[in-house]
Amino acid sequence: MKAYIHQVQYYETDRMGIVHHSNYVRWMEEARMDFFRQIGCGYEKLEAEGIISPVTSVECKYKVTTTFAEEIHIDVQVAEFKGVKLKLKYTMLRDGGIVCEGYSEHCFLDKEGRIISLKKSSPAVYEILAGQVK
Amino acid sequence: MKAYIHQVQYYETDRMGIVHHSNYVRWMEEARMDFFRQIGCGYEKLEAEGIISPVTSVECKYKVTTTFAEEIHIDVQVAEFKGVKLKLKYTMLRDGGIVCEGYSEHCFLDKEGRIISLKKSSPAVYEILAGQVK
Amino acid sequence: MKAYIHQVQYYETDRMGIVHHSNYVRWMEEARMDFFRQIGCGYEKLEAEGIISPVTSVECKYKVTTTFAEEIHIDVQVAEFKGVKLKLKYTMLRDGGIVCEGYSEHCFLDKEGRIISLKKSSPAVYEILAGQVK
Amino acid sequence: MKAYIHQVQYYETDRMGIVHHSNYVRWMEEARMDFFRQIGCGYEKLEAEGIISPVTSVECKYKVTTTFAEEIHIDVQVAEFKGVKLKLKYTMLRDGGIVCEGYSEHCFLDKEGRIISLKKSSPAVYEILAGQVK
Repeated sequence: MKAYIHQVQYYETDRMGIVHHSNYVRWMEEARMDFFRQIGCGYEKLEAEGIISPVTSVECKYKVTTTFAEEIHIDVQVAEFKGVKLKLKYTMLRDGGIVCEGYSEHCFLDKEGRIISLKKSSPAVYEILAGQVK
Repeated sequence: MKAYIHQVQYYETDRMGIVHHSNYVRWMEEARMDFFRQIGCGYEKLEAEGIISPVTSVECKYKVTTTFAEEIHIDVQVAEFKGVKLKLKYTMLRDGGIVCEGYSEHCFLDKEGRIISLKKSSPAVYEILAGQVK
Repeated sequence: MKAYIHQVQYYETDRMGIVHHSNYVRWMEEARMDFFRQIGCGYEKLEAEGIISPVTSVECKYKVTTTFAEEIHIDVQVAEFKGVKLKLKYTMLRDGGIVCEGYSEHCFLDKEGRIISLKKSSPAVYEILAGQVK
Repeated sequence: MKAYIHQVQYYETDRMGIVHHSNYVRWMEEARMDFFRQIGCGYEKLEAEGIISPVTSVECKYKVTTTFAEEIHIDVQVAEFKGVKLKLKYTMLRDGGIVCEGYSEHCFLDKEGRIISLKKSSPAVYEILAGQVK
């Protein structure tokens, strides 16, 4: 699995001179989408099947500040998954040092907004994700 | 018509210490939605009728910088409207002085994504908007 | 203490039709800044004294989705504060029902980027914040 | 000169199902920073010299909508530059077709916020930019 690389943009900084903390939540999404693509179940495919996966919780622990023009490497790991709730862990690094640790939790909904178990609805996607649990 | 008031947020600033220029485009949307509400045709009602109104062009002329905790007053005027293309002008002020002048152009689409004339599709909305042309 | 009110903007929605989850982190900042203002220590004053207060962690637990044109009421409470680390809790409501619960942690830095204790550096601000602990 | 490539993110879409129009202004900044880097005068270097370059106007003409997971190629050209005002043109393409045309204008300020002529203040940067005028 290749780490996702985010190049920090100027519009992501705030007047403290550093990246505004809300952007790390967006980077987690960027890395998550890239991760889904890498394991062969791109989110756009899930959506095309009528499945959406809203975020049910998100957490960031900021270690060091970052700023414009820096390159952030983001590792994504499946921390927990048994078919219904997916928990991901994000390790964000700059020059090998951790800048932020993040977590997100997700469920899966069908077109009618009902919670589904991927094990039943999309066994192929279930197998791929379950195989990623560390 | 009451001017829309936007309180500048910290996350809208960048590391120059000023509001990032992209946010004015968002403020124009805030002021536009408020304007639609004030004249009695809230955008959520248009959407409920199956009409969407994408932005076809946008322009900002920045006069003075603004920053966190300032209060920006935004006047919206219908610059042009004959039923198909809507052109709006935005005057953004702080303490009575102009900080930015903006323009946006919009068309109206039905559910199938076809351009419609409000004059035919929604005569009531057409009348209201046409009555606002200065 | 008056709850902070955020009117959901169109640009805050995503293609699921709901507010993108990253925006709640920004609303927490809006509510926090309003809270600081209400208790008499506006953040712009802190900054003018040479004190900044970066976010060291943030957490959101999403209960129900929200969307454009809705009004979100945000209550802010000081969950923990002894002078160095400030922990805030945010309760976000729509029509009286909880849509999201948030938490943020902050430290205080001087101009040189050193962690300071508000108890020593700004006793007046310390007293105000300490008096808010529930 | 290599076109800058922006991968559309989920958080950039809105509830029309398309990219929110304000994001194109941010993509222009991404492409502009990449362009500066490619011609050998990265913006972070300018800032380190004490020069900032605020945006004085911005314009977008939207041709076709774009959405999540698409790849946008952005060409940047120096439309006008004689030392004081810099005008850039952006051509944004998807699969070879134009999705948006953008323009931005910039001035250059020293640490005291005074408008400067790059021709005098930074002749090396001036030569590079002037050499890019089409």
